[in-house]
Amino acid sequence: MYRLILSDAGVCASDGFFADGISAGLKAENAKDMAFIYSDTECVVASVFTTNKMLAAPIKHFKNKGDFKTNFILINSKNANAMTGIKGLDDIYEILSTCGDDKVNPLMSSTGVIGVRLPKEKIINGIKLFDTTQKNPHSAAKAIMTTDSYSKECAFRVELDDGSCFNIGAMAKGAGMINPAMATMLCFITTDADVSKSDMQEALDKSVKTTFNAISVDGDTSTNDTVILLSNAKSGTYEKQAFEEALTKVMHFLALEMARDGEGATKLVTYNVTGAKDDKEAEIIAKALSDSLLVKTALYGEDPNWGRIASTVGASGVEACEEKLKISFDDVCVYDKGKVFFDEAMEARAATVMTHAKFSISCDLGIADGAFKAYGCDLGYEYVKINADYRT
Amino acid sequence: MYRLILSDAGVCASDGFFADGISAGLKAENAKDMAFIYSDTECVVASVFTTNKMLAAPIKHFKNKGDFKTNFILINSKNANAMTGIKGLDDIYEILSTCGDDKVNPLMSSTGVIGVRLPKEKIINGIKLFDTTQKNPHSAAKAIMTTDSYSKECAFRVELDDGSCFNIGAMAKGAGMINPAMATMLCFITTDADVSKSDMQEALDKSVKTTFNAISVDGDTSTNDTVILLSNAKSGTYEKQAFEEALTKVMHFLALEMARDGEGATKLVTYNVTGAKDDKEAEIIAKALSDSLLVKTALYGEDPNWGRIASTVGASGVEACEEKLKISFDDVCVYDKGKVFFDEAMEARAATVMTHAKFSISCDLGIADGAFKAYGCDLGYEYVKINADYRT
Repeated sequence: MYRLILSDAGVCASDGFFADGISAGLKAENAKDMAFIYSDTECVVASVFTTNKMLAAPIKHFKNKGDFKTNFILINSKNANAMTGIKGLDDIYEILSTCGDDKVNPLMSSTGVIGVRLPKEKIINGIKLFDTTQKNPHSAAKAIMTTDSYSKECAFRVELDDGSCFNIGAMAKGAGMINPAMATMLCFITTDADVSKSDMQEALDKSVKTTFNAISVDGDTSTNDTVILLSNAKSGTYEKQAFEEALTKVMHFLALEMARDGEGATKLVTYNVTGAKDDKEAEIIAKALSDSLLVKTALYGEDPNWGRIASTVGASGVEACEEKLKISFDDVCVYDKGKVFFDEAMEARAATVMTHAKFSISCDLGIADGAFKAYGCDLGYEYVKINADYRT
Repeated sequence: MYRLILSDAGVCASDGFFADGISAGLKAENAKDMAFIYSDTECVVASVFTTNKMLAAPIKHFKNKGDFKTNFILINSKNANAMTGIKGLDDIYEILSTCGDDKVNPLMSSTGVIGVRLPKEKIINGIKLFDTTQKNPHSAAKAIMTTDSYSKECAFRVELDDGSCFNIGAMAKGAGMINPAMATMLCFITTDADVSKSDMQEALDKSVKTTFNAISVDGDTSTNDTVILLSNAKSGTYEKQAFEEALTKVMHFLALEMARDGEGATKLVTYNVTGAKDDKEAEIIAKALSDSLLVKTALYGEDPNWGRIASTVGASGVEACEEKLKISFDDVCVYDKGKVFFDEAMEARAATVMTHAKFSISCDLGIADGAFKAYGCDLGYEYVKINADYRT
C-alpha cells in the first residue's frame, strides 16, 4: 500500500529539480514568457507528442536526438516555432548552444503563433536571466501560458509502506486547440522516483488515453502538443502501481483544468457514455459529444436540448438506436428508451443542472458494456472573441 | 447540345407542379410554416437521406414504403418529428390520412426541434388551407425555413437541339447543422423530364457528393436531412447529359446558398485542395478546413492566419508535409514550400481578400493529383447567439 499526499510545489516537488519563469519581452508589459526546468543530475525521458503531420521544430529536434538523457528544458510562449522549416530547427540549435556547459542535451519547447521565426535574440538574452538555483515552479507555470486564464500545476508526494517516498510534480498549459488527440497543450512532469525509462513510457502512454486524449475544447489538434516526463531517480525508491496511480492523477487533474479553462469556457462537462458496443465506440461517441458545436453552444445557453445530444450520438457512426438510448443531465433523466420525460418541470430541473460549473451528461446506449468518459466545455462569445483575433 | 435557361419559378418551373406555403400557427406571428408540392399526375421518386442513425420519423415513413409513386409532399417547419419513436410515425399516418383521396402515397418532411411530438391538430387544420391549384413556389420556399435568413430556390429550363425542352426546379432550407455528410437541410426538386427512376437516382447520388456533401456550417449531421427528386415526365423529353448538368447546377447553387447563409455567417469560402495523394485525401482536408473552428473564427476575424490552415491540414491525418505545401488566399500566396512570404505587406493583401463576401483558400499539397472543393463559412458571435437559445 501507499499514500498520495498533495503538494503545491509543482515541478519542483521532485527532489533536485529547479524551475523559474522570466520575462524576455515576447509578451507585452513584461509578462513572464520563458521558463526552464533544470535537474542537478541527468534524467531519463519519456514523451508523447502531437499526431499532427506538421510537427513543430522543437518536436523534430527532440525526435532527431534518438535515445538520450537530459537535465534541462527551455520553454517559451508567444511563438510556436512551427511551419518554420529547417530554419526553425537551426534556431533551436543556435539558442540551445548558449545555455551553458552544465546543460546536457538541452531541450526546447514552444507554444504560440504558427509560421513566424522565433525572436532569437530576445530568447538568447532571456536565457542569461535564468538562475538554475531557483525553485519558483509557479513562476515557470505562468510563463508558459498563452490564452490560459490561470496557470496549471499538480504534484504528489508518494509515501510507500517501507517509509520511503518519491515525488511527482507537473505544470501544463492548455486553452485552445484542445482536442481528443492531444491539443495545443504542453505538459512537463518531473519525478525523483527511481523508475526505468520503459516503465515511464508505458505509464505515460496508458495515462494519456483517459486524460489529455479525453478532453476537447475545439476539436483542433495542434502542431506543438507535448508531454515530457523526466526522472532523475534521486529518491532511490519506486513502486510501479503507486507511480502509475500518482502519474494518472496528476495528468487527470491537469487535463480537467485545461477543459475547464478552455478558451472562454464557463462550464466543465463530463460526457459519460455507457452501454456501447465496445469501449472504442463509447469513446467515439463521448468525443463526438465533447466536440459538437451544437452541444457546446447549448451548454453555453444552459439549454437542456437533449435532441442535439441524441442527434450527435446518431451522427457519430456507431451502433445506436432511439429505442435503447437513455440520456441524463447529472441525475435528471430526460429521455429513456423512447419515453420522453421532457416536460416543463423536467426542463426546469435539467436547466438547473446546467447552471452548475461542473456537471455530467450521461448517455447509456443499452447495447453492451462499452464505456468511456470524455471531458469538454461550453463555447460562447468569448471563444469567438479570443480566436477571431488571437494574433493581434 | 443543349441550353440551360435560368427560371425564377422554383419548384413550379416544371410543368404540372403546384406549390404553396401557409401559416398553421407553428411559427409565431402568422409566419408561413407549412408547404406542399403537388403534381397533377403521379411521379417517380429518387432520394438521398441523412446518415444519422437516429432517423427522423418522416424518413422512416419514406423508407418503409419500398418502391412507390407519389404526387404530394407535405412539409412543416418548427418541429423535426425526430426522437419521437413509434408515436412520431403514427402521427404521420394520421396526418397524411387527412390529405384527400387525390393524394397518392403522400409524403411528409419535417424540420425543427428534435424530441417533441408534432402539433397534430394544427397541422391537420393547416392541410385544410392548402389549395393545390396554386403555383406559389416562393411562398412554399419561405414556409420551410427555420433559422435561414432567406429562402433558397433555383430552376432551369433545358432546351434541347431538337426543339423540345424540359424543366428542373428546386427549393431548399439550410442554416445550421450543415455538414459534409449532408446537414439539417431539406431539398425538394421537381422535374418534368421523362427520366427513369434509375437515371434520377444515379444523377442525384453523383451530384450530392460535390454539392450538399461538400458544404459545412458546423460539422453536425442532422436527423432529418432529405433530398427528394420527383419527376412527372410531362415534358415527354429527356437527355441524360443535359439532365445531369442541370441537376448538378441546381444543387450546387442551393448548396452554396446554404453555406453562405450558415447560421450567423458573413462569408462564403471555397476550400480548393489540390496536389493531394488522391481525391479522397483532398476531400478529407477540404472538409477538415471547412469544419475547423479555429479556421472559421479566423475567417470571421478577417485574420489571414495561415498557420491554422497548415495545422488543420497536418491534423487531418492525410499525407502532407510542410516542405511541399502551398497556401493562398485567392491569388495571394502566403506560404510556398517552406518559404514564408508573410510580411506586413503580404498580411495586408491577404487580409483584404478576407474582407470579401466570397473568396477561396487554396492548399496545394504538392504530392500528386488528388483534388476536391469544399465550401464553408465563418463562425462568429451570431452563430453562438442563434444556437445558445435556438429552442426558446
